[in-house]
Amino acid sequence: MTFNSTLDTIKTYEAGKPIELVVREYGIAPDQIVKLASNENPFGCSPKVKEAVRAIIDNMALYPDDSMVKLKTALSAKYAIAPNELIIGAGSDQVIEFAIHAKAHEGSKVLMNSVTFAMYEVYAKQVGAHILRTASREHDMEEFYALYAEHKPDIVFLCTPNNPTGDGLDAEKMLSFIEKVDSDTLVIVDGAYMEYARFKDPSKAVDPRELIARFENVLFLGTFSKAYGLGGMRVGYGIAQAPIIKALYKVRPPFNITTLSLEAASVALEDEAFVQECIAYNFEEMKRYEAFAAAKGINIIDSYTNFVTLSLPEEKNSSKIAQELLKKGMIVRDLSSYGLNAIRVTVGTASQNDRFFELTNSLL
Amino acid sequence: MTFNSTLDTIKTYEAGKPIELVVREYGIAPDQIVKLASNENPFGCSPKVKEAVRAIIDNMALYPDDSMVKLKTALSAKYAIAPNELIIGAGSDQVIEFAIHAKAHEGSKVLMNSVTFAMYEVYAKQVGAHILRTASREHDMEEFYALYAEHKPDIVFLCTPNNPTGDGLDAEKMLSFIEKVDSDTLVIVDGAYMEYARFKDPSKAVDPRELIARFENVLFLGTFSKAYGLGGMRVGYGIAQAPIIKALYKVRPPFNITTLSLEAASVALEDEAFVQECIAYNFEEMKRYEAFAAAKGINIIDSYTNFVTLSLPEEKNSSKIAQELLKKGMIVRDLSSYGLNAIRVTVGTASQNDRFFELTNSLL
Repeated sequence: MTFNSTLDTIKTYEAGKPIELVVREYGIAPDQIVKLASNENPFGCSPKVKEAVRAIIDNMALYPDDSMVKLKTALSAKYAIAPNELIIGAGSDQVIEFAIHAKAHEGSKVLMNSVTFAMYEVYAKQVGAHILRTASREHDMEEFYALYAEHKPDIVFLCTPNNPTGDGLDAEKMLSFIEKVDSDTLVIVDGAYMEYARFKDPSKAVDPRELIARFENVLFLGTFSKAYGLGGMRVGYGIAQAPIIKALYKVRPPFNITTLSLEAASVALEDEAFVQECIAYNFEEMKRYEAFAAAKGINIIDSYTNFVTLSLPEEKNSSKIAQELLKKGMIVRDLSSYGLNAIRVTVGTASQNDRFFELTNSLL
Repeated sequence: MTFNSTLDTIKTYEAGKPIELVVREYGIAPDQIVKLASNENPFGCSPKVKEAVRAIIDNMALYPDDSMVKLKTALSAKYAIAPNELIIGAGSDQVIEFAIHAKAHEGSKVLMNSVTFAMYEVYAKQVGAHILRTASREHDMEEFYALYAEHKPDIVFLCTPNNPTGDGLDAEKMLSFIEKVDSDTLVIVDGAYMEYARFKDPSKAVDPRELIARFENVLFLGTFSKAYGLGGMRVGYGIAQAPIIKALYKVRPPFNITTLSLEAASVALEDEAFVQECIAYNFEEMKRYEAFAAAKGINIIDSYTNFVTLSLPEEKNSSKIAQELLKKGMIVRDLSSYGLNAIRVTVGTASQNDRFFELTNSLL
């Protein structure tokens, strides 16, 4: 059986190892495992969300409301946008897929940062698009513009704060870049960690409403998987002017969000205080990682997210260290597949972080 | 902003109206609405499933186990297949999407029955494939073969029992057809309602294990949305020889099933007795629809599913009747968009069915 030749170049995405896998591979009891690999909110979601989901367990049999009116109304209110400027995906990940399927095809060009979220490339390659990358580790808008001007890509991805490095792009610099881009190039601003950046430094914050009011060719991405503590429920969204949303809807499968997930995300928006408390806690605990790195003489990338990326010296191999930690029940993300000798660690609860410092003290 | 020209021909899928929409549009109280439009199990899922999902509510924050070991182990055991002969989708719908994205492209040909599940065409058009259809309402294997021999399509869809008509294809006739198909044509056997057919008439039953043991080019689809009562949780699956599954995995987004959905589907397989009881009840109640149709002189298609399709006489317009019922809080599916003057009604609980007979008595 032959398949589309575009499949040949696709690498499978390497997900953070779930706790189940470590249990199976190393026989460590689940309660002894600390997972700081997938940037989940260590406090989970608001208790109100759990209560709401429990209350509608009987609805598991019923197909979801495919118009998603409750969630779309709540999100529209949050961002002061119209419901037709909004599309919901199974994670913002799925909105990336929609955008690529709607806009790109064999021979299209897609521009992205040297190191950035791996799925941009995976989805682009599925349709046979060419990948263009900058050279700098951080988003350098001048370099982006030079590549843009030379190649006129169909899609540009800007990930801010950037995953898996945590650094944030100055909002003004980003806007100046978009200003110079032709209106037929789709610029996707991936703000999966934007809630954290907004809390830490307003100069890194992007307001989706202002963004789409100003540009007809920008798609902003947000998610419930990080700050809102719903990584397991697969809910994200895209915000753009109505014509973009209409095109994305054409490639959206019906019922792409589960009945329980729609309820969870809707109710999560009703407890903003919980989310802000978690974010404040995150940055307090992050200081301990910064102090730990400083004491060890390890470079830590200034982070606007809920994770820290530790760039290791040459003599400390990130894959080996991640593997050593795994055997001890501590799951972190090795970034060697991104071409970095670095590990990415989610900022957990105080006791989870204590455990990280304890286990790595002799390794780093 | 321009988009891929393939989008121009895509019609948006018309989903069964959710109860929420009827509440909003007609102001009818939710407990007064009877939804017999989406072929959900009227008894929902097994109580054991609800208990299991409640028990892991705290895991909503955690990304799903992307290797899906628990569900894949349970499904592999059910069908006596290897885990690498299995892929899980967000509904079998998503497996259709995977297959089309992996196998079809602009100019590919996709053959399907005249009247059949609408998403085959939607996904095929997304990649710019040409649609070929038979003329007969029921799957006619001779007609399928004639079109196959003439056009050599890349993909053939066989939906048995067929949605939205409910009729079942004789398994032997189907196998004889597949036997004559070239091994580079992917034959997709959509068995979303197969649990019902197997119960009613073994001659209509397809065994996925035998199917893939015999053919290297067949993909069988199953779902938890119908008999297993988990329509809201979005879990389906594809079964095929390993090379097909491997290709489909290349276009699968990571984390495509929610944490709660994986648990729900896994536990649903542990209570087969519940499912069989629901199916037995379904066919008992179906007899009442058959009697009702006979008394009214309305043609009812012999159904191997959990729904009945009533072909209406010319003077009774299906759209008007569905609309009249909607105003009274009864949601059924008008099949006019499929070119049929018919309504499709899910077989509900006895009291839901009573309500249908009561409301339609003067209309039909």
